[in-house]
Amino acid sequence: MKVNHNAVLLFAAALCLNGICHAQTNTESSASNFKPASTNQQGKMYPQVNSDRKVKAGVMAPQASKVQLDLGGKRYDLVKDDKGMWTGESEPQDEGFHYYQIQIDGAAVPDSNSKYFYGAGRWGSGIEIPAHDQDFYGLKNVPHGLVSENIYFSKLTQAWRRCFVYTPPSYTANAGTRYPVLYLQHGSGEDETGWIAQGHANLILDNLISDKKAAEMIIVMDNGYAFKPNASTAIVNNQPPAPVFEEVMIQEIIPMIDAKFRTRANRDNRAIAGLSMGANQTMRIIMNHLDTFSAIGGFSGTPNYPNGDKLDPAVFLDGKFKNGADVNRKLKVLWLSLGTKEPKPFPASVGAFKQMLDKQKIKYVYAESAETGHEWQSWRRALHGYLPLLFKN
Amino acid sequence: MKVNHNAVLLFAAALCLNGICHAQTNTESSASNFKPASTNQQGKMYPQVNSDRKVKAGVMAPQASKVQLDLGGKRYDLVKDDKGMWTGESEPQDEGFHYYQIQIDGAAVPDSNSKYFYGAGRWGSGIEIPAHDQDFYGLKNVPHGLVSENIYFSKLTQAWRRCFVYTPPSYTANAGTRYPVLYLQHGSGEDETGWIAQGHANLILDNLISDKKAAEMIIVMDNGYAFKPNASTAIVNNQPPAPVFEEVMIQEIIPMIDAKFRTRANRDNRAIAGLSMGANQTMRIIMNHLDTFSAIGGFSGTPNYPNGDKLDPAVFLDGKFKNGADVNRKLKVLWLSLGTKEPKPFPASVGAFKQMLDKQKIKYVYAESAETGHEWQSWRRALHGYLPLLFKN
Repeated sequence: MKVNHNAVLLFAAALCLNGICHAQTNTESSASNFKPASTNQQGKMYPQVNSDRKVKAGVMAPQASKVQLDLGGKRYDLVKDDKGMWTGESEPQDEGFHYYQIQIDGAAVPDSNSKYFYGAGRWGSGIEIPAHDQDFYGLKNVPHGLVSENIYFSKLTQAWRRCFVYTPPSYTANAGTRYPVLYLQHGSGEDETGWIAQGHANLILDNLISDKKAAEMIIVMDNGYAFKPNASTAIVNNQPPAPVFEEVMIQEIIPMIDAKFRTRANRDNRAIAGLSMGANQTMRIIMNHLDTFSAIGGFSGTPNYPNGDKLDPAVFLDGKFKNGADVNRKLKVLWLSLGTKEPKPFPASVGAFKQMLDKQKIKYVYAESAETGHEWQSWRRALHGYLPLLFKN
Repeated sequence: MKVNHNAVLLFAAALCLNGICHAQTNTESSASNFKPASTNQQGKMYPQVNSDRKVKAGVMAPQASKVQLDLGGKRYDLVKDDKGMWTGESEPQDEGFHYYQIQIDGAAVPDSNSKYFYGAGRWGSGIEIPAHDQDFYGLKNVPHGLVSENIYFSKLTQAWRRCFVYTPPSYTANAGTRYPVLYLQHGSGEDETGWIAQGHANLILDNLISDKKAAEMIIVMDNGYAFKPNASTAIVNNQPPAPVFEEVMIQEIIPMIDAKFRTRANRDNRAIAGLSMGANQTMRIIMNHLDTFSAIGGFSGTPNYPNGDKLDPAVFLDGKFKNGADVNRKLKVLWLSLGTKEPKPFPASVGAFKQMLDKQKIKYVYAESAETGHEWQSWRRALHGYLPLLFKN
């Protein structure tokens, strides 16, 4: 008998409902209103978040000599009590989702209290800081689409790959209906799980559809890392790796999706978007394939990354933006966005790209996410702004 | 909004493909043929498994004073080298999947090298020990079904729940075809993710369908923990919790699946099965609802658990097995199975149940999984044996 049957948990969703959380009143001070994070494993009291958006970690490590919370690029020393429980608080964090880890005597480990997410190049801990606008990605009593895992063998990479496919609420009942498709890409160090687990793309679209603010559509989320067989998989300086992902998208993913799902298989009904590295990748893909897509969303990224220098449309991306009027005719939606707290080089490189668009009189929508950095809250908000612009008839 | 919607399907198929693994030759000794486990995160060299099925853990913890591998109910001391890397080997493990963790100076933490699985009441590390018969759950070049995450609000529990739904390879193309359904339940301390991530139920059925050894069917995997609102969630002595799961299954899950998917919605085309606690639950459900299901699989569990005493069919389960001839008429398939290394009380309680069936002249299939315990390899094999018996026309 290898399984410990003592600790039995409920439904894995963080039900911070059943008496675990303390009631919060307006009279409570922020010091006393710490509550378990919604990203905790069921029943785990730590980590906690308070109304100042500070994180309080708790780690049981009786024989350790040094334990730290490693969050937002800083390490916070925790203090041990007489039972061996180490606790300590961080500085206030931005709203939204953050990756973190615990340091125990020099070992960087996931927090055993949290659920695990893929980002920063690894499966590890994440924490959700409640946001003032969290309602738009909340799980609500509205019709919900399905998210399907689709496994396929890629001949171009000679490897098994997978994508997640969101189908909208009406998809299963309306067997005669076909739907437009958004291809939505993750960023560097992330994978095809990010847009659901961290981004809540399905809930964002469920809610928008319910409010009649967005068209019913399919969303396909694949993995942006694709290499020719035997190619190096090394990722250098946050740059997109070997460019075979474009071929995989055009030659393998789109034909597979059009064959397997009830799509409207034409450019008017096909959009693409991505965050950071995914923005860079998808902008290049669409400009090479304007016959395939009609809308692009670049969330916290542009194809001149990491360069902030002025762009010459005659040569940039082989002159793809040289004829602004032609780009305007072909692109129904060109969306760019950025968090107001994004670090270098994003403001400069996105800014240079916008200036080039302005110069070419190319129409685009630009949005900023207030008080967020190069993180998921910026990208949730970007998706929420971008989706209503798509597939308007 | 308090519910964290963590939709990550850990695709734990053995991707020991991408150049991570060293070539193994017949001349290598077991001491030298350690290879990274297929359950490792991409690119991680530890933990490793050798041909003796020993596990070698590796943890970087420069300032720690004691690091242990906690696997199979034993703790193995690791030894530090001059770079701060702790390594050490376990005794030989059984074939198949095992949960494990790392102890660092008294802190029980997930291994940062592994992927994470839900079991033993927590998200944590798991390791795959290659099995001689692993081909039947291997990821092969055959048509693959989809696995969909389906979120729903349960009125009976007043909570958000989810199930994963496997649809067979032909489902998307054959819009006019309806399919039989298997409802498949996890065990104690596990959840609705287990049968895909640890059990590879989708790959097992993909392979059987490709070999024409099983019918194309839908598999629904929901969460066996379901309580009335505000009911206690305490679970005592590994007993199944409050019995509202039966009501959720009959009144909520099945009608939802029949409405949302193209099912053959009748008892002849509906089967149920479960492992351990799930075997107990599903046996009770089917005996109360022979109008709803026609086949049952009890993997390493029976409804008399944990009792090994002789059963009186006049009173056991309210006399549901009293009329053996009637049970034989109604149950097309009654499957029981057990691993040969299962601990108390499983052999005795399953044995007592079988004796009762024999006495009542109730037909059943009994299978044993050689050299495996109360773990996933027993249950993969059980599913692989059970599926071909279902929905024969």
